[in-house]
Amino acid sequence: MASNNQPLPGFRDFPPRERLQSRYLFETWNRVARRYGFSEYEGPILESADLYLKKSGGELGEQLFRFEDKGGRDVVLRPELTASLARIAAAQQRDYPKPLKWFEIGRCFRYEKPQRGRLREFYQFNADILGEASPAADAELIALSIDVMRELGFDEEQFSIRLSDRQAWINFAKDHGIEASQLDSFLQVIDKIERDPDEKMKEKLKPFSVELEEVRSFISSAGDSCSENLSEVLNDLRARKLDRFVEIDLSIVRGLAYYTGVVFEVFDSGKKLRSVAGGGRYDTLVSIVTEGSSELTATGYAMGDCVISELIKEVPSALIQYQAWLQTQATCDIYIVIADESMRPDALCLGHAIRESGLAADWPLSPAKINKQFKAADHTLARFALVIGSEFPELKLKNLNSRTEETIPAGSNIIDVIKARLEAPDGPLLA
Amino acid sequence: MASNNQPLPGFRDFPPRERLQSRYLFETWNRVARRYGFSEYEGPILESADLYLKKSGGELGEQLFRFEDKGGRDVVLRPELTASLARIAAAQQRDYPKPLKWFEIGRCFRYEKPQRGRLREFYQFNADILGEASPAADAELIALSIDVMRELGFDEEQFSIRLSDRQAWINFAKDHGIEASQLDSFLQVIDKIERDPDEKMKEKLKPFSVELEEVRSFISSAGDSCSENLSEVLNDLRARKLDRFVEIDLSIVRGLAYYTGVVFEVFDSGKKLRSVAGGGRYDTLVSIVTEGSSELTATGYAMGDCVISELIKEVPSALIQYQAWLQTQATCDIYIVIADESMRPDALCLGHAIRESGLAADWPLSPAKINKQFKAADHTLARFALVIGSEFPELKLKNLNSRTEETIPAGSNIIDVIKARLEAPDGPLLA
Repeated sequence: MASNNQPLPGFRDFPPRERLQSRYLFETWNRVARRYGFSEYEGPILESADLYLKKSGGELGEQLFRFEDKGGRDVVLRPELTASLARIAAAQQRDYPKPLKWFEIGRCFRYEKPQRGRLREFYQFNADILGEASPAADAELIALSIDVMRELGFDEEQFSIRLSDRQAWINFAKDHGIEASQLDSFLQVIDKIERDPDEKMKEKLKPFSVELEEVRSFISSAGDSCSENLSEVLNDLRARKLDRFVEIDLSIVRGLAYYTGVVFEVFDSGKKLRSVAGGGRYDTLVSIVTEGSSELTATGYAMGDCVISELIKEVPSALIQYQAWLQTQATCDIYIVIADESMRPDALCLGHAIRESGLAADWPLSPAKINKQFKAADHTLARFALVIGSEFPELKLKNLNSRTEETIPAGSNIIDVIKARLEAPDGPLLA
Repeated sequence: MASNNQPLPGFRDFPPRERLQSRYLFETWNRVARRYGFSEYEGPILESADLYLKKSGGELGEQLFRFEDKGGRDVVLRPELTASLARIAAAQQRDYPKPLKWFEIGRCFRYEKPQRGRLREFYQFNADILGEASPAADAELIALSIDVMRELGFDEEQFSIRLSDRQAWINFAKDHGIEASQLDSFLQVIDKIERDPDEKMKEKLKPFSVELEEVRSFISSAGDSCSENLSEVLNDLRARKLDRFVEIDLSIVRGLAYYTGVVFEVFDSGKKLRSVAGGGRYDTLVSIVTEGSSELTATGYAMGDCVISELIKEVPSALIQYQAWLQTQATCDIYIVIADESMRPDALCLGHAIRESGLAADWPLSPAKINKQFKAADHTLARFALVIGSEFPELKLKNLNSRTEETIPAGSNIIDVIKARLEAPDGPLLA
């Protein structure tokens, strides 16, 4: 592995250019979450296996990075964050007023076959509301999931939210004589209805004595009135003028076992990719995780970084916005060109003073030709180069965008001059 | 483990209040690194064991979280970041102009006995310069390490940098007939000179046929002239007026085997805690990691989050600055009080418009008494509450600091009013 300088399969390196793409997502997620009044939290990467094995259910169990630590503990790299959150919220809930509106941006790990949009190590943005049973909390998260997409440059032609309610399926199951103990496996079957061919679905539905046609007709007949929760969620989103992004689709049930009510997924309109994000209500997970010692209603939302990154590349409005953002990511405000090497001590003194003023400054660490220094300056995307030469304390300030130059006379407050130029838009500088 | 809701031993939960402390460190690290012209990168949490076992040397090998993944690979949770960086830099170096000035803030893992300032999962800030052999790069990192401390509210009475050069020890070893193959183990002994009692030191020095007195006298005789590199580093720092933070101390050699030249550690002046940060030159690591296929001179710096967090609590100037920062961390700009529940749809519409303007807004998700809503507003640290009641579209805006109130008449541009109030300092508002 190491000899070809590559990371493990399904893992990624983020040299600065790739890191900017993560940073773009993190800043967007962070900004929207804060705008919605969420506070940041974080959990450990490593957890007791018990927490994720017994509690999350579904297919995660087989995808765990699981091992025994030096102390003989059965541990896992977290495959997602909800069980950790349930544990932390249960421990902390007395110290925070309800509802808790918490968000997190962190790494998760699943041992899967690496493929487009699916890796073994990925970032996930989680936003959860705990201690609020009303559908207003579900609507708040769905609104947030819409605004994350819009903030990334997607509009209603490019994505939609498919909204469902597991409660509707619980009622369906009851009406069709499916036992409560069979419910999880029944929902696992429904979860695959878009992917599995009809013959396979029919086979998988047999143990539940339900016809595929009944299931399909239940899904297609669903409207606003199919669940009181969904109708409340839609009313709330309508008041925010966000209902146009949402359609009811009961074929969405979400893979994980812990969901109990309203669930939703975000899809690109072309449906070329798997779901971009999703979430739902999990009112019993805190009780399951704490073995009954705490109860806390909860609803959550999560978006990974892999699928959305693919989608940004495919949708021009999103890609253009990302590229415009990239152009603002200069690695310094001002690059100091040392035109006369004997001035280096003065350049260091000046450069340090500029940094102390809060600006970002860089300069060549060892002697270099002036051309090479200007090339390095261009590489940083800095708007200005400050040239220090034998005329010091007179200096030259060069605008690297407009390629204009001004002389800063001896005795000027250089930092004030630089700050004024940085605040002004680009244009011809004083000659 | 899970039944008491606690994380694994040596691991931490970060509910929002604890997370703010991490966020304070991250923002400071990030700000200083960018001011110095560093670009952010990141590596994977999981790496091939080979990378960290064979390359880093020293005591890390015994502290690894190491296991076999489902594909039979021998893997580790990274105990630090330098070997990953060497791997990534080797793979990427053709795509970036030299020197690379890269920084990272991420999690590392060491299986140690959890104690004050030392945990099994911690954050580490890394700043490295690759492709620059001159001591100017070392000075740049030492200056950065000083500015990180100052930015956190520490001054020269409260910390110092102890500066050394492994090259001086390499020369010492040569002069005393210590074989090159013994050098690593000799430096491991020197590394413990402050912790081990004299008797133990004497015993440990025996295999090298060196007297403790010789070692001590070598350390105490060292001045600016003991190494050309150190003297260049000091000249550079003098030009920046930062030399007052630095003292030469050859007893510093750093624990890891890969250091080759200038090394340094940051200590609190009371020396009550282990070193707060440290770094040094590692010119051969890229070649070792790539089995000779790449060469890249390098020097690096790292600070963990555990010791510095302890130190902030102990030093009043640092603690006061942190607490002042905490007061600025409101979870929203404006809290909407719904005084008349029938107005909720209008409140949602207005709240959403405020969020779309880029401001952070929050409101009660379910009906609540007005007193309770104002209490919730106080909890968010929001400066303003917007009260929507039966007089709508007339609104009331309440300054939660000054406890003054103004009426916003129907027809006003509410968002403009709020933005103007948020930009103005607190004072008596119009009645």
